[in-house]
Amino acid sequence: MNAKIESALKKIAFNDEGLVPVIAQRHDTGEVLMHAWMNRDAFIKTMESGQMTYWSRSRKALWRKGETSGHTQALKEMRIDCDGDTLLARVEQVGPACHTGAENCFFEKL
Amino acid sequence: MNAKIESALKKIAFNDEGLVPVIAQRHDTGEVLMHAWMNRDAFIKTMESGQMTYWSRSRKALWRKGETSGHTQALKEMRIDCDGDTLLARVEQVGPACHTGAENCFFEKL
Repeated sequence: MNAKIESALKKIAFNDEGLVPVIAQRHDTGEVLMHAWMNRDAFIKTMESGQMTYWSRSRKALWRKGETSGHTQALKEMRIDCDGDTLLARVEQVGPACHTGAENCFFEKL
Repeated sequence: MNAKIESALKKIAFNDEGLVPVIAQRHDTGEVLMHAWMNRDAFIKTMESGQMTYWSRSRKALWRKGETSGHTQALKEMRIDCDGDTLLARVEQVGPACHTGAENCFFEKL
């Protein structure tokens, strides 16, 4: 792990389960695509590979976005919020972001 | 509580603590402003008043955004994601969204 990633990790306030929420946003249009979670390993893999990798809470496993669907997310910029407990990933999305086939996961208005 | 709010509440998968994460986004520019949490009461108050109201996990109290700072958030549109466990609120932000005085909470790049 390089020094940049090590230093970034120290800024992240992981929760009691060792997870941090991540908002994925299209870097070009600002569209909010999805909300997911990372653990320490997912964060390291994402930063090292440049491909968004999350922690699946249901499957309890690392999950590289698009590994089965091909709908990958390349990381353009990783940001952290003022209290260190949320990440904002600005990404380049290939194909639809949502597993339903929708462009993003927030297609339902309440 | 009106029928629209009651029906919306049924779609929200609150977590074990009775909370749901909320992404606040500027409705006009798409800027992601902050990430916070709502419980059932915060959601109802937000929908009834049109003013973003969160649950403060540190203070364990409802918190109408801007109640002390004046930096309110008027709700323009509330959306929910495909599995019902995250809300996306498109808002009209008055003044800076972050308590630090920054326009949004994600001012630090990792």
